[in-house]
Amino acid sequence: MNDRPISRFPVPEIPDLPDDLRERILAVQEKAGFVPNVFLALAHRPDEFRAFFAYHDALLERESGLSKAEMEMIIVATSGANNCLYCVVAHGAVLRIRAKDPLVADQVAVNYRKADISERQKAMLAFAMKVGEGGQSVDDDDFDSLRGHGFSDDDIWDIGAITALFGLSNRMANMLSMRPNDDFYLMGRQTR
Amino acid sequence: MNDRPISRFPVPEIPDLPDDLRERILAVQEKAGFVPNVFLALAHRPDEFRAFFAYHDALLERESGLSKAEMEMIIVATSGANNCLYCVVAHGAVLRIRAKDPLVADQVAVNYRKADISERQKAMLAFAMKVGEGGQSVDDDDFDSLRGHGFSDDDIWDIGAITALFGLSNRMANMLSMRPNDDFYLMGRQTR
Amino acid sequence: MNDRPISRFPVPEIPDLPDDLRERILAVQEKAGFVPNVFLALAHRPDEFRAFFAYHDALLERESGLSKAEMEMIIVATSGANNCLYCVVAHGAVLRIRAKDPLVADQVAVNYRKADISERQKAMLAFAMKVGEGGQSVDDDDFDSLRGHGFSDDDIWDIGAITALFGLSNRMANMLSMRPNDDFYLMGRQTR
Amino acid sequence: MNDRPISRFPVPEIPDLPDDLRERILAVQEKAGFVPNVFLALAHRPDEFRAFFAYHDALLERESGLSKAEMEMIIVATSGANNCLYCVVAHGAVLRIRAKDPLVADQVAVNYRKADISERQKAMLAFAMKVGEGGQSVDDDDFDSLRGHGFSDDDIWDIGAITALFGLSNRMANMLSMRPNDDFYLMGRQTR
Amino acid sequence: MNDRPISRFPVPEIPDLPDDLRERILAVQEKAGFVPNVFLALAHRPDEFRAFFAYHDALLERESGLSKAEMEMIIVATSGANNCLYCVVAHGAVLRIRAKDPLVADQVAVNYRKADISERQKAMLAFAMKVGEGGQSVDDDDFDSLRGHGFSDDDIWDIGAITALFGLSNRMANMLSMRPNDDFYLMGRQTR
Amino acid sequence: MNDRPISRFPVPEIPDLPDDLRERILAVQEKAGFVPNVFLALAHRPDEFRAFFAYHDALLERESGLSKAEMEMIIVATSGANNCLYCVVAHGAVLRIRAKDPLVADQVAVNYRKADISERQKAMLAFAMKVGEGGQSVDDDDFDSLRGHGFSDDDIWDIGAITALFGLSNRMANMLSMRPNDDFYLMGRQTR
Repeated sequence: MNDRPISRFPVPEIPDLPDDLRERILAVQEKAGFVPNVFLALAHRPDEFRAFFAYHDALLERESGLSKAEMEMIIVATSGANNCLYCVVAHGAVLRIRAKDPLVADQVAVNYRKADISERQKAMLAFAMKVGEGGQSVDDDDFDSLRGHGFSDDDIWDIGAITALFGLSNRMANMLSMRPNDDFYLMGRQTR
Repeated sequence: MNDRPISRFPVPEIPDLPDDLRERILAVQEKAGFVPNVFLALAHRPDEFRAFFAYHDALLERESGLSKAEMEMIIVATSGANNCLYCVVAHGAVLRIRAKDPLVADQVAVNYRKADISERQKAMLAFAMKVGEGGQSVDDDDFDSLRGHGFSDDDIWDIGAITALFGLSNRMANMLSMRPNDDFYLMGRQTR
Repeated sequence: MNDRPISRFPVPEIPDLPDDLRERILAVQEKAGFVPNVFLALAHRPDEFRAFFAYHDALLERESGLSKAEMEMIIVATSGANNCLYCVVAHGAVLRIRAKDPLVADQVAVNYRKADISERQKAMLAFAMKVGEGGQSVDDDDFDSLRGHGFSDDDIWDIGAITALFGLSNRMANMLSMRPNDDFYLMGRQTR
Repeated sequence: MNDRPISRFPVPEIPDLPDDLRERILAVQEKAGFVPNVFLALAHRPDEFRAFFAYHDALLERESGLSKAEMEMIIVATSGANNCLYCVVAHGAVLRIRAKDPLVADQVAVNYRKADISERQKAMLAFAMKVGEGGQSVDDDDFDSLRGHGFSDDDIWDIGAITALFGLSNRMANMLSMRPNDDFYLMGRQTR
Repeated sequence: MNDRPISRFPVPEIPDLPDDLRERILAVQEKAGFVPNVFLALAHRPDEFRAFFAYHDALLERESGLSKAEMEMIIVATSGANNCLYCVVAHGAVLRIRAKDPLVADQVAVNYRKADISERQKAMLAFAMKVGEGGQSVDDDDFDSLRGHGFSDDDIWDIGAITALFGLSNRMANMLSMRPNDDFYLMGRQTR
Repeated sequence: MNDRPISRFPVPEIPDLPDDLRERILAVQEKAGFVPNVFLALAHRPDEFRAFFAYHDALLERESGLSKAEMEMIIVATSGANNCLYCVVAHGAVLRIRAKDPLVADQVAVNYRKADISERQKAMLAFAMKVGEGGQSVDDDDFDSLRGHGFSDDDIWDIGAITALFGLSNRMANMLSMRPNDDFYLMGRQTR
């Protein structure tokens, strides 16, 4: 199955990449043991690659009232709603690892209302769904409700912005028919 | 009306901004005669600001088979579909100027099928709508159809990626209740 | 651009029209400075023309708890939801003039929730949206809520009936590909 | 059940009505044997009553390539799609009588694709459904397809305009919770 | 009209059927005076026939807090929402008979909110609609609300399960283009 | 996590069950190594349990032009579309095992268009999606298209009927908040 294309678009060879992309990719490879296909597929356009990962890091690596696992819940729920295979599978793996929970990713991808998560997390994902559908009806009541669950305003920004960024990512992956690496499917499923 | 808030979130003062943000903002102000509110609203988070505009420039300033006006058509049509007031108004102004056409922005925002644009441009916007809804059903036929209208594969990437980036932007603006500057409404309407 | 067709259907010459239609059209022309295309496009069917404008006048010229500007808000919001280019552009112009506000029409057309209008007006438009989608779920709670905003029952009829009439108008204009006059786009934008 | 209200709004007594309304209503009563509630419910607003029935007559009593039964099919299918109880029940009765067919009204109200009607009539109703949803995507292909089924352009106008007028009627009836007369339910069911 | 096909698939002759199917069918025929087409259409697959009617009987013939008429309301409302001609027409007849009400079936099929039924029954049908759309958002509040209307938990199971079973039935009938017997259309309409 | 409820409704103890249910459950337990929760949750209603599994067996154990794996693809795709956690997780496991493919279940659950399956299988799932949405628009073209992919008419019945049965199952599981056994999540993921 390794010979199936990972993108509709040309995928560069790692040695041909600009230094900064190659370094980032090799660093990920060292850490994960393989190169996630999103890095190769997006490397077709180095400037967009840099911007996407800069955005990604700005949101996912900042101090936040959201835990790393909660951030991944948002990504997985959004990607499920957008039927994005790459992101559900790849971030599902990350969510399992971050949450140290082999079940939560499938639960959140299929129906977060039935997941083994807190009421606070369900409120977080309900807001993410609302932003993911376009956000046109977000209003003061949404903010009040989330504050009632203990989210700060900047936490709310984080929820919406992560949803928005992965809405972008879902659309790119769907357009490219980006293929998740086989490795992701099993990751984090045996950590209990 | 100038005292209405431009974002639900705190908006920094320009002198307090990091140098690179301040410089970009002052450059825009010099060129446009005012500071578009998106710069101030997103400056609440400098790293995300940098990433967003890097992505924006990577897509909108690259060599492309799409004209600058066509890129703005994609933005306006996507923003109309997502009911994003900021982006329809601000990019509507840019589209009028880029296309040297005072009518096209309102046409594309409301219903691109009735706009004074070419069949090729209507095909471009139909694809943008499909990506904007999530892109889950994008398939080979879409690519073949666009190639039949003379788009290269990289042009197709541009269409989808601009749609995806402004889908992000629409969601942020809707979440923030970002307010378009009054100046945008009239810009480019008298150029005939 | 003046040579683009204003309707898929034949458009009569003004001198060939029945007297009452010609008189109405010349009166409008005298007042507005041009003949709005809807008069010419609908004149293809004089009896329907008469009925439409009789309905229009019955609703829009009666004494009502709604101001003239509020009536136009309903029309513009409904027309935006139905992607009706003619009605958004033409009634957008009227709304700007009636409200003496160059911004409100674009706001209401794109997303009334973000418009510079009162909470009462937002409730009015929320009800219009519900009727515009078919009205099948309108219930006592909707009436109670609107009464709580100070609307009389006859005001509520007005909201729903204007929505319903312009739902008709939107469908006709979309079917005919009715073209808004170029003049409308700029009207009322410089009144501040 | 006769004491259930026929409208949320006040319903005038026939003797109190303006002459022209009273005459029309008495004429209908003489012909049908009862007064259809729509006449009483809309008589709350005489000017709108006049305009509505003028529009109705202009469309339904003109010479057309559509038969009277086909016109009623459009009304019933549109009203089914809009969940309008009054119009499905009242015009279902008329359709049964016009078509001399006790079955066709229920078929068209529930799912016209399964009705005992011609392919030409199914094409007619498919177009009506497209206009009924707003008509924003009506295009040349729709016209070509209908012409291929033998419809003239004016027949197509009739299809769309009847759909649009009863879209208005459906919204009014839903808003008013207009109650169909008990008499309608059984009419035309035993004509075979 | 009796020679129109009752299913896209082959329909067995009654004498050729397995004994248990033939007996059930003859018993129905004796009671109803004709053989409802669903029995013949589903008899193409005897094992599925047996299972379907076993499920049907398990739900509809058990002791329940729902009356027989209420069970049929659920079926008719669900079938209306799924545009299932066979089920609306056949179960509409049964509902009229069970409720001894010639009007209620058309009301519930078109728009249960406007039907002459109790608030409790409207709450029951609102829940059925939610399950009918997939049930993914059913939550504790739904159960609490129904309990507040006097439904036991097992009554709630009945509502949801009947909805689910007839969702199956609607999909089969739509796929088969199952034709309702002409007899159903008039049944129960003259019982007042 | 074993102490989380597997259903909103009471779950009987296995020794208390009627013999036939207990025997079926013990047989499954012997084969699978555990009792899938659907057996316990549905055992709250023994007659419905019997009917459901009779239906299940009638469809899934008959001779068919569909392979066992293809049947499970239909179930998983339908369950994904209905956001049914139990069925995606449990039948995802079965699909992995039947197809001897650790990846295909997640692919089909998220977006079958991007799955490693044949064009024939994608056509099968496209039809399942159409039936799953209600089947109201299924027509001759659908049958012709599937025949063109080599499906017999009885294969098409199988596709639609499996979709319909699991539409029922999805609605029951969603209403019950039926919890998938932890065991399913990992099953069949390591068979390569």
